[in-house]
Amino acid sequence: LVFFEGPAAVSAVFTKSSFRAAPVVIAESRISAGGVRALLINSGNANAATGSSGHEAALGLCDTVAHALGLDGATVAPFSTGVIGEQLPFERMNSELPGLVNSLAADGWLAAAAAILTTDTAPKVISHQVPLGESSVTITGMAKGAGMIKPDMATMLAFICCDAAIEGACLDTLVREVADASFNRITIDGDTSTNDSFVLAATGANNLPHITEVGSPEYAVVKAALLHVARHLAQCIVRDGEGATKFVTVNVTGARESNEALDVAYTIAESPLVKTALFAGDPNWGRLCMAIGRAGVADLDAARVDVYLGELCVVRGGLKDSKYEETAGARVMALDEFEIRVELGRGSADAVIWTSDLSYEYVRINAEYRT
Amino acid sequence: LVFFEGPAAVSAVFTKSSFRAAPVVIAESRISAGGVRALLINSGNANAATGSSGHEAALGLCDTVAHALGLDGATVAPFSTGVIGEQLPFERMNSELPGLVNSLAADGWLAAAAAILTTDTAPKVISHQVPLGESSVTITGMAKGAGMIKPDMATMLAFICCDAAIEGACLDTLVREVADASFNRITIDGDTSTNDSFVLAATGANNLPHITEVGSPEYAVVKAALLHVARHLAQCIVRDGEGATKFVTVNVTGARESNEALDVAYTIAESPLVKTALFAGDPNWGRLCMAIGRAGVADLDAARVDVYLGELCVVRGGLKDSKYEETAGARVMALDEFEIRVELGRGSADAVIWTSDLSYEYVRINAEYRT
Repeated sequence: LVFFEGPAAVSAVFTKSSFRAAPVVIAESRISAGGVRALLINSGNANAATGSSGHEAALGLCDTVAHALGLDGATVAPFSTGVIGEQLPFERMNSELPGLVNSLAADGWLAAAAAILTTDTAPKVISHQVPLGESSVTITGMAKGAGMIKPDMATMLAFICCDAAIEGACLDTLVREVADASFNRITIDGDTSTNDSFVLAATGANNLPHITEVGSPEYAVVKAALLHVARHLAQCIVRDGEGATKFVTVNVTGARESNEALDVAYTIAESPLVKTALFAGDPNWGRLCMAIGRAGVADLDAARVDVYLGELCVVRGGLKDSKYEETAGARVMALDEFEIRVELGRGSADAVIWTSDLSYEYVRINAEYRT
Repeated sequence: LVFFEGPAAVSAVFTKSSFRAAPVVIAESRISAGGVRALLINSGNANAATGSSGHEAALGLCDTVAHALGLDGATVAPFSTGVIGEQLPFERMNSELPGLVNSLAADGWLAAAAAILTTDTAPKVISHQVPLGESSVTITGMAKGAGMIKPDMATMLAFICCDAAIEGACLDTLVREVADASFNRITIDGDTSTNDSFVLAATGANNLPHITEVGSPEYAVVKAALLHVARHLAQCIVRDGEGATKFVTVNVTGARESNEALDVAYTIAESPLVKTALFAGDPNWGRLCMAIGRAGVADLDAARVDVYLGELCVVRGGLKDSKYEETAGARVMALDEFEIRVELGRGSADAVIWTSDLSYEYVRINAEYRT
């Protein structure tokens, strides 16, 4: 449970899935109406594909929390993550809620981050402070997610709060800009969840003037700090990817437009053959060419494509670089973290995304675990 | 080596990859120019991303075969499958070609089908005869492929020959129609090869009148027989999918148009979470809803979606069917072969594709094998 002691500006982005979970529908409506004061988050059950009883259950839990906090029911927004298609254990959850309200604590972030995990192996939480004007801005956030990760708007449950005062329209822009450059740039398995939600709250507790203009110097300072926090959380999710043994940055440059660069980056990052080569530490650049080739870039001239593993040029002009030696490629691929860079040679747009490998462990986890 | 004793009509479809292999470029040009009399196929080396030396090597091998057959070099079309980015062992291959020509045999299909395999575990070959007019049509085909399989035009090397006489324009239509309903309806891992080629040759050896009109009764008979052969080969590829333990038909009905149905079918078939659930035999219908939800169908109303495992209704109107019991779902999922049907409830278009599961063995094969 996240509670704002005073009124806060809250914006959010949610999954674009057609099978949106009940809490997603309710939270989006309440956050967009304004006045949200608390976020109620559960893991273990996604409350998705649960029809009207799932909807009623989420509303009922919010009402209980609101009552205990002395608030109106519509000021509580619900979030769920876990198994799809099962009804919430309403009575069991409902009876615990007054105790949850009583145990609210300003230093409860780590406990909350730990409570919302499913197949995650570690809590994902960060706090970050930057100076601004006469004072500073403190930003604290948490996230969960390790599988079913290809956020399309936001990722599987991330919550970031800051104590700056930010006006609603400004915050709406900020949440989108931050999501697009962080949670919307990761993929573990290309599977987009029914419950993805990213919430950004601005409490104004730092008593600095309201930030009212997109692109103002104060906006830029807060945005940079938020990006630092959001990227950290997003990268934590990739590092904790189901069965992940590698953290790989895919950087596509020289595209005509950024969507083209993103298409190539995601095709590489989601190719099972590339991902198994990452797992094997095999500098199998032919599979990178395969993925680039099938990314759907119109009129791509393979003879202008270069590929780098870290600093090492592997492919130049569409074929093996004359100086490349496989032992050097294998040294890069043996690292826990490295970059794959693809230069398309047709423009100046680029895109960076982060991904993990495909291991036996991914298969084991998802053959054994019920999402 | 496939050799047509007399002139034959030959049409083909090839990968849409931007990284097309040298033999693909040469074969497409020669088949489109007409007069092709022989197909030279190698496995173990894809001759892709090999630049001008790869191109010259393919031309040189074709010349040697043409010389031995007493033909012009441009009448031989080359095909390759195997590791990407390595140069062909030209001398070693070239010295074997005269012997290959000497060992040509009308009953050599099975040996040829076995010779072109890579990670495949069994040759894929079929012969089929249908009556037509006073005589009959005999169709014989072979294919290879087990990974890097999501054909986008045709699949990784399939060759079908028939003894009907079919005019060029007619054959061009036929090869596309057959590919679209067979090889272009399978996916193992969503990865499209640099070398996919599907060749259809009509020799006219049955001495029946030329088939000159798309949609004529004779065209329909031959097309149905070709589809039987092509689907058999395509399904052989899925059954032999790398590490595959299940053969699953994904049938999407009630779409507004067939592309919409295909988008949903491929999203299900390529979802790592769905594929690991197939491997586990886990009737995890929540993951099917997840995949349907992220398939990008505009304005899809989840409340109109039904999902069936075989004959068993699992999801009705977007949530668990009231009569569904998990033990019944588990019985279907325990089968080696079954159908997943999704009814979208918004139109009358449909699409069927065939796929396999994602197992430990897929990861092992592709972590250990160099494509």
